Amino acid sequence: MLNFDLYMPARIVFGRGTQSRIGELLKPHAKKVLLHYGGGSIKRTGLYDTVVKSLNDAGIPFVELGGVVPNPRLSLVHEGIELCRRENVDLILAVGGGSAIDSSKAIAMGVYYDGDVWDIYDTGKPIEKALPVAVVLTIPAAGSESSGDTVISNEETGRKYGYGSPKLRPLISVMNPELFFTLPKNQIANGVADMMSHIFERYFTNTTHVDLTDALCEATLRTILSNAPRLMEDPQDYDAWAEIGFAGTVAHNGLLGMGREQDWACHAMEHELSAAYDVAHGAGLAVLTPAWMKYVHKDNLDMFVQFAVNVMGVSKGFRDKEDVIREGIDRLQNFYRVMSLPQTLTELGIDESRHEEMAKKCTEIYFGEEYKVGGLKKLGWQDVLNIYTIAK
Amino acid sequence: MLNFDLYMPARIVFGRGTQSRIGELLKPHAKKVLLHYGGGSIKRTGLYDTVVKSLNDAGIPFVELGGVVPNPRLSLVHEGIELCRRENVDLILAVGGGSAIDSSKAIAMGVYYDGDVWDIYDTGKPIEKALPVAVVLTIPAAGSESSGDTVISNEETGRKYGYGSPKLRPLISVMNPELFFTLPKNQIANGVADMMSHIFERYFTNTTHVDLTDALCEATLRTILSNAPRLMEDPQDYDAWAEIGFAGTVAHNGLLGMGREQDWACHAMEHELSAAYDVAHGAGLAVLTPAWMKYVHKDNLDMFVQFAVNVMGVSKGFRDKEDVIREGIDRLQNFYRVMSLPQTLTELGIDESRHEEMAKKCTEIYFGEEYKVGGLKKLGWQDVLNIYTIAK
Repeated sequence: MLNFDLYMPARIVFGRGTQSRIGELLKPHAKKVLLHYGGGSIKRTGLYDTVVKSLNDAGIPFVELGGVVPNPRLSLVHEGIELCRRENVDLILAVGGGSAIDSSKAIAMGVYYDGDVWDIYDTGKPIEKALPVAVVLTIPAAGSESSGDTVISNEETGRKYGYGSPKLRPLISVMNPELFFTLPKNQIANGVADMMSHIFERYFTNTTHVDLTDALCEATLRTILSNAPRLMEDPQDYDAWAEIGFAGTVAHNGLLGMGREQDWACHAMEHELSAAYDVAHGAGLAVLTPAWMKYVHKDNLDMFVQFAVNVMGVSKGFRDKEDVIREGIDRLQNFYRVMSLPQTLTELGIDESRHEEMAKKCTEIYFGEEYKVGGLKKLGWQDVLNIYTIAK
Repeated sequence: MLNFDLYMPARIVFGRGTQSRIGELLKPHAKKVLLHYGGGSIKRTGLYDTVVKSLNDAGIPFVELGGVVPNPRLSLVHEGIELCRRENVDLILAVGGGSAIDSSKAIAMGVYYDGDVWDIYDTGKPIEKALPVAVVLTIPAAGSESSGDTVISNEETGRKYGYGSPKLRPLISVMNPELFFTLPKNQIANGVADMMSHIFERYFTNTTHVDLTDALCEATLRTILSNAPRLMEDPQDYDAWAEIGFAGTVAHNGLLGMGREQDWACHAMEHELSAAYDVAHGAGLAVLTPAWMKYVHKDNLDMFVQFAVNVMGVSKGFRDKEDVIREGIDRLQNFYRVMSLPQTLTELGIDESRHEEMAKKCTEIYFGEEYKVGGLKKLGWQDVLNIYTIAK
């Protein structure tokens, strides 16, 4: 086990009716709130009215800024920063999924930053301060409700950068599984693939003597595997949503990756798909993850046997390791199929014409020196190209 | 799954050499520290010198108060409160195990309380404020390094009360498994029994649809079961200690009990043993837990089959449920035996003479109205007496 530093301050207020408590929960922390959200869905479902009533009942004044889009944009972040400064906002309340939360985090740190907040994403330099961010979650997927991470797209340069700081971990996140009942099935499936990937990226490692986090990763993955298909049958299954919602937060609050070298190659390879073809992040991950497994498993056969047996329920028997692993990967692909997720890049509308460009961008060699991605196996641009080819 | 409120703010800084970083870690949070500890062991091992050097290097002035004993006492807490007020201490650093941490938490809230801090334990009323508490952990067992709980003994009245508040969760806990190398084997075993019980008390429940926390509890228990015996062979096994230390914190930081009705009958029954006979908490739990299982399992056969199969590795086969459960409990008792833990109250030097008195104190009927303990099965004083009899 490696040395680690675990910090999970985000308070998770979970269950039926909790969205009505947001005003009372924020009262000790906020004098004036920025209510930050996306499009009209929270108005259609009545969630907007519930949150506004709760803030009013608690006597918390607020200003609002809607219009967050998937792959949230820098221009709206700039607008939010100006608004917070002008109105002396001291807490940002995101009502939405990962995009609204990530945009809120960008505003939260931008308020205290003298230059363009994009510099922070560009340089990765540590921040001293940020406004507190609170969340009413409407999509379980990104795990941003418990993490200190934010991803923002700069429309002018076409770049999409992530940034992380312990100061960006939300103060309070409210999660009522009933709010997920209206999600379309493709969004359910994409969210599930995303949270599974957050665990895979931590789970697959060459670090030894990590029994506890191995077992916690496997436990969380099995819970997702058994509950997610129930949502494809019935998107109003509260019990299944409660497991998936809770699992999505545990997947990304940091705990499962402690003491382990992590990987994150699939996320890096997927970001290039999203950037070039605007595919949904979860769908891209569902295609790339099995391809990555097929390509890298030889570097740590025992880790992938463990995955096949402990996560996918493959029987070890007196079998060849490669055989056990192959069945594990097959079962994972079957699961994605049950979730109506794509199996190939072709299904995502991606042909081979830009594979090399994406592989070179992913490993930075497109812009200059090569930077290898991944942990279990360090991947250069040719490795990434091979994985795109397997996934085609 | 029940609604829940998860709050785990304690930052865990884990691994080799981390105790030397305590000054640097506390620097942003403290102007003057109370260093609070037990007897001479931290001086013998050199840990005291390391911590003092680290505080000095960081330029953090401190005062100190040693003398914490197991079952930490109210009189020393009073002394600590006076000292903190007089010296304008703004953070308490516990160097030790559960007793030093619990005593620190009592002082931390007492500083801001106008009357006798014992009132808070006596009435259970919520607190508004407490000084921050930090920890350098020397014994993994109580989980106090991540919890908001504290247990204090009042020497004058002979009562031992617990109290909990989110405001008492430590700010930072430093855990280096190397610091556990010098623990005597009985203390290792008692600590392991204690952390397992923290999970059992959360795990055994009648609440349904709690797949994720079921699986996380089972994962953590299995990790403890496989690593603890290694420490009885070699108390300097870093890898095994890392798993046990991390598991002890996960066991009690709150996560594993979210959304579930909890039990805590074994803890309540054990407190009476400790109060009447001054037995070690973990040893008492190792005796009572299997007896409790034998007595209550009929109330939820499926939960105990799940325990036998998923935790103790019993094969389900085409067997009678009672048979599977019996093997599960047998295996647990075997594990405690491997850990050189006692199997009966008699081995703890407890005869039947005070069973009834303890059962009546445990359920409060000794003092007035009966208060049933437990969750999976509510136990009156006669139930508790029956369990003591099974354990005799």
